[in-house]
Amino acid sequence: MTKKPLIIVTFYPKKRKIKLEKDISILNAAMEANIGIRTECGGKGICGKCKIIVKGKKAVSELTESEKTHLSREEIATGYRLACQTFPKKSVEILIPEESRVSARKILKFGLESEIPLNPLVRKFHFKLKKPSLCSIEPDYERLLQALSTFSNIKDVKIDYTILEQLPDILRNAEWDVTVTVWNNRKIISVEPYDTSKILFGFAIDIGTSKIVGYLVDLNNGKTISTASIENPQIMYGSDIITRIAYASENRDNLHSLQKIVVDGINKVLAQTCAQAKVNPFNIYESTVVGNTTMHHLFLGIQPKHTATSPYVPAVKSTINAVAREIGVKMNPSGIISTLPIVAGFVGGDAVGDVLATEFHELKKTSMLIDIGTNTEVFVGNADDILSCSCASGPAFEGARVTHGVKAEIGAIERVRIGSNFDVEYETIGKTGPVGLCGSAMIDIVAEMFKHGVIDSGGRFNFQIRTPRLKISNRQAEFVVAWKNETTLKKEITITQKDIREIQLAKAAIYAGCSVLMKRKNVKEKDLNRIFIAGAFGNYINPKNAKLIGLVPDVPTEKIKFVGNTAIIGAKMALISKEARETAEALSRKIRYIELAIDSEFEKEFINAMQIPHKDLRKFPSVKGYLH
Amino acid sequence: MTKKPLIIVTFYPKKRKIKLEKDISILNAAMEANIGIRTECGGKGICGKCKIIVKGKKAVSELTESEKTHLSREEIATGYRLACQTFPKKSVEILIPEESRVSARKILKFGLESEIPLNPLVRKFHFKLKKPSLCSIEPDYERLLQALSTFSNIKDVKIDYTILEQLPDILRNAEWDVTVTVWNNRKIISVEPYDTSKILFGFAIDIGTSKIVGYLVDLNNGKTISTASIENPQIMYGSDIITRIAYASENRDNLHSLQKIVVDGINKVLAQTCAQAKVNPFNIYESTVVGNTTMHHLFLGIQPKHTATSPYVPAVKSTINAVAREIGVKMNPSGIISTLPIVAGFVGGDAVGDVLATEFHELKKTSMLIDIGTNTEVFVGNADDILSCSCASGPAFEGARVTHGVKAEIGAIERVRIGSNFDVEYETIGKTGPVGLCGSAMIDIVAEMFKHGVIDSGGRFNFQIRTPRLKISNRQAEFVVAWKNETTLKKEITITQKDIREIQLAKAAIYAGCSVLMKRKNVKEKDLNRIFIAGAFGNYINPKNAKLIGLVPDVPTEKIKFVGNTAIIGAKMALISKEARETAEALSRKIRYIELAIDSEFEKEFINAMQIPHKDLRKFPSVKGYLH
Repeated sequence: MTKKPLIIVTFYPKKRKIKLEKDISILNAAMEANIGIRTECGGKGICGKCKIIVKGKKAVSELTESEKTHLSREEIATGYRLACQTFPKKSVEILIPEESRVSARKILKFGLESEIPLNPLVRKFHFKLKKPSLCSIEPDYERLLQALSTFSNIKDVKIDYTILEQLPDILRNAEWDVTVTVWNNRKIISVEPYDTSKILFGFAIDIGTSKIVGYLVDLNNGKTISTASIENPQIMYGSDIITRIAYASENRDNLHSLQKIVVDGINKVLAQTCAQAKVNPFNIYESTVVGNTTMHHLFLGIQPKHTATSPYVPAVKSTINAVAREIGVKMNPSGIISTLPIVAGFVGGDAVGDVLATEFHELKKTSMLIDIGTNTEVFVGNADDILSCSCASGPAFEGARVTHGVKAEIGAIERVRIGSNFDVEYETIGKTGPVGLCGSAMIDIVAEMFKHGVIDSGGRFNFQIRTPRLKISNRQAEFVVAWKNETTLKKEITITQKDIREIQLAKAAIYAGCSVLMKRKNVKEKDLNRIFIAGAFGNYINPKNAKLIGLVPDVPTEKIKFVGNTAIIGAKMALISKEARETAEALSRKIRYIELAIDSEFEKEFINAMQIPHKDLRKFPSVKGYLH
Repeated sequence: MTKKPLIIVTFYPKKRKIKLEKDISILNAAMEANIGIRTECGGKGICGKCKIIVKGKKAVSELTESEKTHLSREEIATGYRLACQTFPKKSVEILIPEESRVSARKILKFGLESEIPLNPLVRKFHFKLKKPSLCSIEPDYERLLQALSTFSNIKDVKIDYTILEQLPDILRNAEWDVTVTVWNNRKIISVEPYDTSKILFGFAIDIGTSKIVGYLVDLNNGKTISTASIENPQIMYGSDIITRIAYASENRDNLHSLQKIVVDGINKVLAQTCAQAKVNPFNIYESTVVGNTTMHHLFLGIQPKHTATSPYVPAVKSTINAVAREIGVKMNPSGIISTLPIVAGFVGGDAVGDVLATEFHELKKTSMLIDIGTNTEVFVGNADDILSCSCASGPAFEGARVTHGVKAEIGAIERVRIGSNFDVEYETIGKTGPVGLCGSAMIDIVAEMFKHGVIDSGGRFNFQIRTPRLKISNRQAEFVVAWKNETTLKKEITITQKDIREIQLAKAAIYAGCSVLMKRKNVKEKDLNRIFIAGAFGNYINPKNAKLIGLVPDVPTEKIKFVGNTAIIGAKMALISKEARETAEALSRKIRYIELAIDSEFEKEFINAMQIPHKDLRKFPSVKGYLH
């Protein structure tokens, strides 16, 4: 036997060389070497997606019939081939053009820099079926399965039976030329006439206690094409989750009302994003949902009452995949709604989304992640181990329960600085006239007032100072941030003594959570490599001020990073990536949880944290300079 | 190494000996030798079902703790052991008591004598979960899966998400002592408080063009505990399937009406069987459905119009498993409705049921099976190959379109004999006064009238004969079967010239189907080992008379066997046996189909078969003696 001469294939643009030891196609060689080349048919010469450019015709096998069909004359002249149809005869150089690169299909995550490959669970396949005849009487569905399997290599697939209803008409009206949408290689969820493969959307949802946010995503490129948000309409049943759980516990009707109302809210957000982007909701085939455990349970109509009493056990932890029409979400009725898995009674899919989006689970060095919301989740750890807890911080930073509080929307004051003579400088979102204060502004105001002695470490106004901004109105002490004539609504924007109290309560709950976790993990401030602050309460947070009011542990300012609404980024990642979803499932099992409600030290920590920045000033050495 | 001495275990009552070559439990030894011993936990000592009686304590291992829990003191004294806990030390005799025998759990099929093992797809498991605590915070669903897997060895199971809604309350209200219903080892469809394992029902449905029949079956023993039937309410949209298909083709609303009305009909039958047997419909966890292809499509809401035009292709062939609440059948809302697979455009799941119930697919010798209904399916073949067709025979034999036709119910005349002097003797179902004529009586009447010269071979009345029974009334010639004073309703029961015509049309369609199939299979009358006649048109058929009118081929009378409603027996078999369901799936692929609508000889055959018994008397040698 003569030994086969060694062939080396070099792939450009990355110039990766691989040795071929057997007679295999360029596509298979690339696959074995984990070099990404697009393919939909798995190498059968059917889809025509695995185009490559070969340097040197003679180094490879002859053009096949399939290539003559899929490549234009110009392409053939340029050296284009299909990777699955091309077998190297000797060493050769291959350029993978942009269009065929799988790495080229990566997307950038919001806020953070890491990339994930685009690999959504829903995929569309466009192909033609052989028309039935008296010699070929295979029924429609079996005919479709056969064609799908030939075209995509997908076998053992089921169908949402409601699609069968119109299948005969769809196939015939489209003259057997259809696009099939498959979920997770397992279930046919749509059959549409002609080629609709470019029309493939997903919807990521973050159900916050106070706010519902939705991202409409084009699953063909992973881009978010529109976003919208509304107040969570469940608020009419209570602004905090404990009140809503109490209401849901009373009877099944209440539970169903809470479910219905949140689904209605989601439908509003969905309709709004669709209208903005001119997308038919029918073309949303999958939706991923994050939310804290209570929001998760209420969305699925699951009784949450037992999460509120010891031992605080949720009904279910792992991913739930439900059919859209069963939940009532007005997307494709056969589409799939997947809830991200949860961690525990008060750490939900939103927290899993936070970790996913920040890649917290891959950090080598110990860090902290705080997702500030009506419920604030805190994580401490690194790739080895993550400990989490949830603090009932209340909705102050999201604009509720604060006199002039607003959401982080156009007109919201987002940055505040107090100058000499107690002048106030501020910036608004959208650079318009101010309408109120969003979360980041509240942090700034309290910090600035504290720095300038307007309030003391107990949060009380200091009436020794002389400024018309500090006054009593309707028997309430308040500090004027924007005068009447500056504002859009021609009403003063102030911060009252009661508002400061609300902010203190919120920051104390959050800091106490951080503190308990650090103790349990035996981590000191100096051990924290990063503090990520997540949340939908603004576009920006002043890390110095966050430390100054004692919201977060006192670490060097450059270590504090504001990462935005990572919960919905996590939901979006799950939407566009099967791998992200698997990671989420692993995270839900891996992240450990501490129940603050039964933690012996939480209350003491909370009380100490009510002071600005903290009762124990040794914890905030960098803040000392501002103290009076 | 010393060689292990050879151990022989003899199992009674069947006295089967097996040699043990390794150290394994009696249960595993029996499993390997394919000797059935009940077990639910798969040999973990948890379920306590694998009780055996050991002859000679010393031949086996010591009693384990698990056995002390599951066996009473009396049982232990008698020699009872659990097979999974018992390891033989030397040769031993084992009696498998009735309660532990899997073979003892077989059931007898209706009509036919063969047995099938009881192995429904739905199974119940009763067990207790460990109560959660602060040291064990696994969520409810994951806790349930863990316990189910420990108890039953069932893993990778999904859950109908609607069950999660009340799961937390159910578990806690029942103090973690629950019964879980699992479908096909794949999906949890119910979680109920405490032990409900004895309450497990299934429902078999036959949707005929004219009649809906339901059997309520106890899935713990495979027994039918009540039955009911009603007229198919779709009849108001046309008595034949072509009219209904035309109606459904007009628009989606029509299609949905037809679906809704048949589901309503099924719900009536279901409610009736439940009321009779005092069973809560909630405890019906699975339903199997048979029907011809049109009924099948309309039940699932699938557009059937394309089955009516060339190339007569159905929408789907294989088994559809749908969730009850989605279809609207009022059983357990999470229960599963499985349609038996179909063969082709006009040979449906009912035909697969016929073959299954008669074990036609296992016959060594070539035979024929005719399921008479509004659509009549005919099969010719044996274990090697089965050819089928469907004839539009009309509803005459089911009582419709015949002046005094009734269904086979109490008061229906089911047998008729005409004596000398044209006296009429008849028998009714339930031995009550007569109310009308069912299918078997119509066969008898036409045959008897023909034998006695009341009608000629064209089906025309012979007014030469002298009897007051033959008369003209309302310009219609008729023959009196029962005089006014004999009947329950005090109205004459007659058979008119038009009625005879209807019966001729029906029998001609059926015979023509038989004839075409025989030609295609190249089978003569002498080659037919058996003719099975199935149908819901009576309890009995007179085979001589069936031949005499030319309904079936002329074979020796003893070869004709009436087997009743085999379609629903097939549905019931699928309900109680996973294996039967697999066989059904294989049959749907195996049975070949001939489309009579495009068969070149069908029309000629049909016209020739209009005569009594047939235009070509050489085909009916045994009938010659009756000819005038």
